[in-house]
Amino acid sequence: MQPVRVTLQEGMHFLGELDGFGIHIDADESVGGKNKGPRPKGLSLISLAGCTAMDVISILRKMKVEPEEFYVDVAAVELTDQHPKVFKKILLKYYLKGTDVPRKKVEKAVELSQTRYCGVTAMLEHSAEIDYEIVIEEV
Amino acid sequence: MQPVRVTLQEGMHFLGELDGFGIHIDADESVGGKNKGPRPKGLSLISLAGCTAMDVISILRKMKVEPEEFYVDVAAVELTDQHPKVFKKILLKYYLKGTDVPRKKVEKAVELSQTRYCGVTAMLEHSAEIDYEIVIEEV
Repeated sequence: MQPVRVTLQEGMHFLGELDGFGIHIDADESVGGKNKGPRPKGLSLISLAGCTAMDVISILRKMKVEPEEFYVDVAAVELTDQHPKVFKKILLKYYLKGTDVPRKKVEKAVELSQTRYCGVTAMLEHSAEIDYEIVIEEV
Repeated sequence: MQPVRVTLQEGMHFLGELDGFGIHIDADESVGGKNKGPRPKGLSLISLAGCTAMDVISILRKMKVEPEEFYVDVAAVELTDQHPKVFKKILLKYYLKGTDVPRKKVEKAVELSQTRYCGVTAMLEHSAEIDYEIVIEEV
């Protein structure tokens, strides 16, 4: 794993550096930020969704399944009554659209990601209950 | 927490959406990606570094301390011999430079972030041993 760095720009605005790419993060204006980038904790959810989405599309392609559209939504509920504020519930929604996207294969791919391959799921599930649903739209 | 989405673009390239911002992620070329963005798991480390960096600068400002430069480096060691590949060790390095940056105040701010405020630390420390060091350069 290559090292990463976040560097203060001004106010609450930081520039993150990862794999040669720059990622701006900032606090919300309600807490002194200027909204020059997303909130840092939310990046954990992009990390989770991206990790499992890459697993699922890789496994589906090995099964010769190629959806026309594929996205993963993540909804998270935080523990809000005490610090530190961690995620207590996370719902992943896998949405796939295509002409030949068999549900059984998608279920298998998602199950493999969630139980075996996705390292981010494995880290976050210590704090959060992680559930998922699969929506397939045939065209 | 606003919902987030990652949407397949092509290959292993996904576009993440968070707080109204777009974040490209992609796999490395060695595993079929085209490196159009960072790897998703690394975003967890930007999330961690950004979370604790915002805590620390907020607490320091309440103590009337304003460093001229401030960054946080994160080095992580993955568990590599089995799936899922989680972080086993994480080292955070807080680097501050300025004319009046008292070490005791920085130590207090980092300790408060790591033990009480940073939700990302609280989530990742179930999997990883998280250590930190503080480097202060007086100018």
